Amino acid sequence: MGSSFGQLFRISTFGESHGGGVGVIVDGCPPRLELDLEAIQRELDRRKPGQSRITTPRKEDDRVEILSGLLDGVTLGTPIAMVVRNKDQRPGDYKEMAVAFRPSHADATYQAKYGIQARSGGGRASARETIGRVAAGAIAKQLLARASGTEVLAWVKRIHTIEASGIDPAAVSLEDVERTIVRCPDAAVADRMIERIEAIGREGDSCGGVIECVVRRAPLGLGMPVFDKLEADLAKAVMSLPATKGFEIGSGFAGTLLKGSEHNDAFLPTADGRLHTATNNSGGIQGGISNGEEIVIRVAFKPTATIRKEQQTIDAQGAATTLAAKGRHDPCVVPRAVPMVEAMVALVLADHLLRQQGQCSFW
Amino acid sequence: MGSSFGQLFRISTFGESHGGGVGVIVDGCPPRLELDLEAIQRELDRRKPGQSRITTPRKEDDRVEILSGLLDGVTLGTPIAMVVRNKDQRPGDYKEMAVAFRPSHADATYQAKYGIQARSGGGRASARETIGRVAAGAIAKQLLARASGTEVLAWVKRIHTIEASGIDPAAVSLEDVERTIVRCPDAAVADRMIERIEAIGREGDSCGGVIECVVRRAPLGLGMPVFDKLEADLAKAVMSLPATKGFEIGSGFAGTLLKGSEHNDAFLPTADGRLHTATNNSGGIQGGISNGEEIVIRVAFKPTATIRKEQQTIDAQGAATTLAAKGRHDPCVVPRAVPMVEAMVALVLADHLLRQQGQCSFW
Amino acid sequence: MGSSFGQLFRISTFGESHGGGVGVIVDGCPPRLELDLEAIQRELDRRKPGQSRITTPRKEDDRVEILSGLLDGVTLGTPIAMVVRNKDQRPGDYKEMAVAFRPSHADATYQAKYGIQARSGGGRASARETIGRVAAGAIAKQLLARASGTEVLAWVKRIHTIEASGIDPAAVSLEDVERTIVRCPDAAVADRMIERIEAIGREGDSCGGVIECVVRRAPLGLGMPVFDKLEADLAKAVMSLPATKGFEIGSGFAGTLLKGSEHNDAFLPTADGRLHTATNNSGGIQGGISNGEEIVIRVAFKPTATIRKEQQTIDAQGAATTLAAKGRHDPCVVPRAVPMVEAMVALVLADHLLRQQGQCSFW
Amino acid sequence: MGSSFGQLFRISTFGESHGGGVGVIVDGCPPRLELDLEAIQRELDRRKPGQSRITTPRKEDDRVEILSGLLDGVTLGTPIAMVVRNKDQRPGDYKEMAVAFRPSHADATYQAKYGIQARSGGGRASARETIGRVAAGAIAKQLLARASGTEVLAWVKRIHTIEASGIDPAAVSLEDVERTIVRCPDAAVADRMIERIEAIGREGDSCGGVIECVVRRAPLGLGMPVFDKLEADLAKAVMSLPATKGFEIGSGFAGTLLKGSEHNDAFLPTADGRLHTATNNSGGIQGGISNGEEIVIRVAFKPTATIRKEQQTIDAQGAATTLAAKGRHDPCVVPRAVPMVEAMVALVLADHLLRQQGQCSFW
Repeated sequence: MGSSFGQLFRISTFGESHGGGVGVIVDGCPPRLELDLEAIQRELDRRKPGQSRITTPRKEDDRVEILSGLLDGVTLGTPIAMVVRNKDQRPGDYKEMAVAFRPSHADATYQAKYGIQARSGGGRASARETIGRVAAGAIAKQLLARASGTEVLAWVKRIHTIEASGIDPAAVSLEDVERTIVRCPDAAVADRMIERIEAIGREGDSCGGVIECVVRRAPLGLGMPVFDKLEADLAKAVMSLPATKGFEIGSGFAGTLLKGSEHNDAFLPTADGRLHTATNNSGGIQGGISNGEEIVIRVAFKPTATIRKEQQTIDAQGAATTLAAKGRHDPCVVPRAVPMVEAMVALVLADHLLRQQGQCSFW
Repeated sequence: MGSSFGQLFRISTFGESHGGGVGVIVDGCPPRLELDLEAIQRELDRRKPGQSRITTPRKEDDRVEILSGLLDGVTLGTPIAMVVRNKDQRPGDYKEMAVAFRPSHADATYQAKYGIQARSGGGRASARETIGRVAAGAIAKQLLARASGTEVLAWVKRIHTIEASGIDPAAVSLEDVERTIVRCPDAAVADRMIERIEAIGREGDSCGGVIECVVRRAPLGLGMPVFDKLEADLAKAVMSLPATKGFEIGSGFAGTLLKGSEHNDAFLPTADGRLHTATNNSGGIQGGISNGEEIVIRVAFKPTATIRKEQQTIDAQGAATTLAAKGRHDPCVVPRAVPMVEAMVALVLADHLLRQQGQCSFW
Repeated sequence: MGSSFGQLFRISTFGESHGGGVGVIVDGCPPRLELDLEAIQRELDRRKPGQSRITTPRKEDDRVEILSGLLDGVTLGTPIAMVVRNKDQRPGDYKEMAVAFRPSHADATYQAKYGIQARSGGGRASARETIGRVAAGAIAKQLLARASGTEVLAWVKRIHTIEASGIDPAAVSLEDVERTIVRCPDAAVADRMIERIEAIGREGDSCGGVIECVVRRAPLGLGMPVFDKLEADLAKAVMSLPATKGFEIGSGFAGTLLKGSEHNDAFLPTADGRLHTATNNSGGIQGGISNGEEIVIRVAFKPTATIRKEQQTIDAQGAATTLAAKGRHDPCVVPRAVPMVEAMVALVLADHLLRQQGQCSFW
Repeated sequence: MGSSFGQLFRISTFGESHGGGVGVIVDGCPPRLELDLEAIQRELDRRKPGQSRITTPRKEDDRVEILSGLLDGVTLGTPIAMVVRNKDQRPGDYKEMAVAFRPSHADATYQAKYGIQARSGGGRASARETIGRVAAGAIAKQLLARASGTEVLAWVKRIHTIEASGIDPAAVSLEDVERTIVRCPDAAVADRMIERIEAIGREGDSCGGVIECVVRRAPLGLGMPVFDKLEADLAKAVMSLPATKGFEIGSGFAGTLLKGSEHNDAFLPTADGRLHTATNNSGGIQGGISNGEEIVIRVAFKPTATIRKEQQTIDAQGAATTLAAKGRHDPCVVPRAVPMVEAMVALVLADHLLRQQGQCSFW
C-alpha cells in the first residue's frame, strides 16, 4: 500500500536509494502504442543528478531497462516493468546520518513508523524513488500525445526570492525550458536563479522554489465529480513528490482576493461544441472536470533538508547532537523536479483519460 | 468511481441536490465504537444553509437518518449508511440556469462529460453533496478521539482581503471558532469579515477566502512513503471540496522563500521516544509521515460562482447569452466550509490510522 | 472494506436484516442509459421471501426506492442509490439465537471477529443483504443488454439429490425458468424438486442444490490476464453469496477426468474475425478472457443452516446448549438464489465491459 | 489493472515468458519480519520446470533476485521487488503457434482482446507468470507463521482418474507431500499417478487433476461479510491460476447432497473463547469468516492445453489448419501447481490478517 498510483493507468514503484535498484510497473497501458524508448531515457536524463553544475555532483547513469510488456517497442497491454540499477553508492557519505536524524528529513519519521530503516541514502525517501515515476510518466506522455494530442510541460517559476513573471503557459516550449540548466524559460531571470543557487550552495545551505506546469490540448470531460476531481488528483500527485509544501490551480491563493464577478470565467460562444472561456482563473478545470482550456498548476518546493551547515538534532536515542551533512547533495532540487512534476501530471491525465473512456464512450 | 474515498476507513457518497436525498456509506469503521449521534447532527448543523444571516436563506433541515451499522448507538463493524432527505426544492430558482451555463460552475463540464445533467440545483456539484462527507467525518472524528485523543479543528483565516493573523493553532478552541457566525476565532477581525460578506452580498457579488486547519495529538507514524504521503492525501481530500483552488502544509508557498538552514525544524531532545521540533515549518509531517507535532494546513476557496450580477455566458447550443442568478445563494461559502475541511481531514487521518494499525502493529 | 464490489462498475451495499433498511450505491454506470425501473423491481420480486409455498412465509414487500443518479429514468453517470426499507421485523423469532450460536451460521464468527453483532435476524449475514446486489445487478443487466445484447440467465440444476440433466444453456429462456416456483426449466424434474423441498421442510430440515448460469452473446475480449481473469472474478462474485460451497466453469471438476485431446475445444473457421469452437469445455473463457462462446458456470449451495430440528451448539459463554430455530426460514434457498447468481454474474460482466472499454477501445 | 492482488498485503506481477524477466512487487508487508531468503528460493524450485521426469524437460534456473525492501534480510515495510531473469528461450519451439491458435489456450483471446500478443511462449499466459506469485506467497507464508503460527499446505488429490482418498488434512506434512515427484502424500497412489502421467505423456497427450489445500491454525475472525468473504477471495485467488476449472470449500459440491441437519457443524463447548466444531463441512469458514478450524479447499485443473497430438484449429486469419505442438511441454501441470495453490492461499490469508488487524485490533 502506498506505492501504487492511478486506477486504470496504474503504476507501482519500488526501490531504495542504496539497494539493488529502483523501478516501476505500469499496468493498464492501452495495447498497440508504439513507444519511443529513447524519449523515456531522455526524461530520466532530465531528472538525474550530476546533469549540471547546480545539481549534486553524484553521477548516476540511470539507464532504464524494460523487462516486459513490449513487443518490438509496441505495448502489449500487459504490465510494463522498468528497472534502473543502483550503482554509485558511497554509504560512507551517509555515515553521520546513521547516528543523527536529519532535521526535516524522513529519517526520524521512518524510524518511528517502521522501527527500522534503510541504513543510508534516504532509503525509500530518496529522490531516486522518483525514477520510477518519471519513467512511467514518459509513457503516459506518449499515450496522451497519441490519444488526444495532449502535451504536459513544466518549468521553474521561482527560485528562492527570484521569480519569473510573464511566462505565457500557452506559448512556452520544451526548448525554452531546457535552454537553461535551471529550467526557467525566461533566460535573464534564469541566470540570476543559477547565481543564487550557486551562492547558497557555497554557503552550505539550500533553497527551494515554485514550479509551474501546463497541460495543453487536454481532452474535454476528464475528471470526476466529488472525490476524484481532476484538481484533487493533481494535488495528490504533485504533493506526493518529495519536498512539496503547496499546490495551486488556476488563480490559486491569489484568486481568493477577487470577487465572484471578477473571478468567474465568462463562456464565449463557440460553434463546435467545445467550451471556451474569456479568462482562465479556473485553470482549465470546473466542477472537477477539464473544460478544454489549458490546465495550469503551481507547486511549492521547500529548500532541500540535507545541508552542509551544522544543525541541532537528536540521535536515535533522543539525545541532543549536531549534524553537518558530508554527502554530495543538491543545493536546490527544483530544476530536477521539473520532469517529476510533468510525470505526475501526465499520469493523472492518462488515468482519467482511460476512466473517461471506460465510463462515457459507449454511445 | 469517483464517489468513494479512503482505503480502509472508506466512504461512498451519493445524491444530487434535487433528488430523493443525499447520503453516505461508511465502510470499515472499527466495531464497538460508541457513537454520539447528536454530535453527528451538530456537524451537519454547522454546514447547513440558513444557519446565519451571511449564508443563503434556503432552509434545509438536514436531519440525518442512520439506516445500518449500529446496535444501540454502538458500531457493529459493518457499513454505516446515513441519509438526509431532500426537501426544500424550488426548481424554479434554477430555471434560468437550465438554458445558460453558469460561468465557472460545473454546468458546462458536466454536460460535456456526461451528455446529460440534473436539471437544476447543481446536481452532484451542489454543496449538498458535502452532507455525506460531513456526516462521515463526524464519525471519523469520534474514532480519532477514542483511539488516540486526536482532535481536528478548522477556522476561517481570511475572507476576501481581510486576514486574521496571530491565531495560534495550538491554542484555538471549538468555542473560539463557533463564537462568531463567520467562524474566525479573532472576534474583532470576524466582525469585519461579516461586514465584508454582507456588503459584497448586497452587490449581488460573492467572495472567497482561506481556511486553516489543525490536527492536534496526531499519532506519530501515520502516512506512507511515496504516493500516499499524509500531506498528499490531505491535499486530495480538501482539493476535492467544491470551490477550492489551493492547498498548503506548514510553511507552504512562503516556505520557499527560506533557506534550508532557516526552514529545517531542529529536533529537540526527548526522553519518551516521541519526536519534538523547535519549529514546525514541516506542518507536522516529514517524509510523508506524521511526526507528532501539530499538522497545520491551509485551503484557498474561490468566490462563489453563482452570483446575482449579470454575466456573459453561453447556452447549451453554444450561443452567447447572459445570466443573472435568481436563486438564494451564499455570497461566501467559506464559513460553511469549515466543517467540511475538518471532515475531510478527519477522514484522511482515520484511514491512515487503520492503515498504520494494519501494517505496523504486529510486533 | 468488504462491502464494495467491482472496479469501474462498482457497487457498495449496506444494511442489516433488522435495521432501518438495506440498499446499494451503484457508481460508474455509463450516462444516458434509459432504465426500466419496473425491471429492477421484478428482479427483487424474484428474490423476495414469501413468493411461493416453498419459501419462507415471511412477507417482505421489498419496494425499492431510487434516491439519486437518474433524471426521468435516465442515468446521469453519477451514483445511483437504491434503498429498501425493513418492515416485517419480528425480533422475537430470533430470541433463542441471541443465546445460542446457530451451527454453520455466521453468528459465532461475527461475534468472534467484531466482539458485537446485530441482535437478531442474521444482521449483515442475512439473505436480505442480497437485495442490494440484485437491484444493482438489474441495472448491470440492462447495461449489458444495451451495450452488447448480452444476456445472463440462471436456473436450478439440482435440488438435494434430484438433478435436471439435458438443459441446453444455449436455448433455455427466462420463461422456461420462471414457469415453476423452483426455477428449474425441466418441468417434470421441477415437480419432484418441489415435492422434495416440501418433504424436507416438513421434517424441520433443509436442503441445498446447484444453480447453473449462462451468459449469452458475451462480448469477445472481456477479462484480464493473471489475477482478474474473468472466471476468477466470477468465482469470487458467486462465492460471496451466502451458503455457496463450490464453483465450476465449463467442464469443471468433471473436466479433470479428460485428456487434453478430449478436453481442448477445437477452433472452427470463421469469416468475421470472431472465434468459434466445436465444443465448449472452456465455458466461454480462455486464458481468463471471454472467447464469445456461451459462458457457463455452476454454483453449489449448501442446505440452509437455520433449521427447526434441534441441534447441539454452544452459547456465547462457550457452554453446551441446544437450539431449535423458531423463525420462518426457507427450507431451501436455491430457487431464490437464482436471481442472486444472475446479479453477481451481470455485475462482473458489466465491470469488465467498462474495463475493456477503458483500456482497449482507443485505436 | 489485473496484475495486482490483495488490499493491504498487495502484490503486483509483471513479465512475459520470453522477455527480460518476470517478477513481483510485494507492497504492505509488515516491517521487521526476518525473512528466510532460501525458503523463497525453495518455493520457486518446487514450481520450476525440469524438476522431475514428469515435468517439461525445459531447464529454467529461476534464481530470484531481491532488489528492494530488505535490510540484512529484514523487511523495511517498503515494497519488496523480486525479479527472475528469463534465460532458456527457444522461440523456435513456438514457431508453429505463431501461425495457429492453440485450442483452449490464451493465444486467440489475447489476440482478440489486445490486437497484439507476445510472439511466443504464451506471453503473459505462460506458467512463468506464476513465479511472481510463488515468490510473494513464500513471504506471505513466513508472515503467517510468525504472526499466528499459521501453516498452508497443498497436495495432489487426484491425477486424471486416479484419486487418493483418506488423506487427513489435519495430519499431512510437507515431507509427506514432497516425498514423491507427483506431490501426493499417499505413496502407493502416487506411484500410479506418476505412471499415468508418463503414459499419457508418451501418447503426446496431457491430463489434469485436483489439488487439495489446508490452512492450519488460521486465526479466528479473518474474512469480511458480503463480498470479501474469505472463501470468495480464496476462490478468486486459485481460479486466477492458469488451467483451473473449479473450486470447492469444505463439503463443496458433495455437500449439496446432504440435509441441513447432516451438514451443519455442531459447536462443541470450549473454555477458552475459541470455537470448535464436531465436523468441518464448513471448511473452516462460516459467514465468510474463519472459525479457527482447518480451512480446506479443492481446486480442479484441466489437462494442459498444449499437446503434441495434432488438433484442429485456425490461423490468425480464421482459416482452418492443424497444430501439433513441438515444444517441451508438461503432460500434467498439477504437481507443479501445488506450490502455486499454496502461494495464492497464503496471499489471501496474509491480506485478511492485515485487514483484520487494521479494523478490529484497537480495543
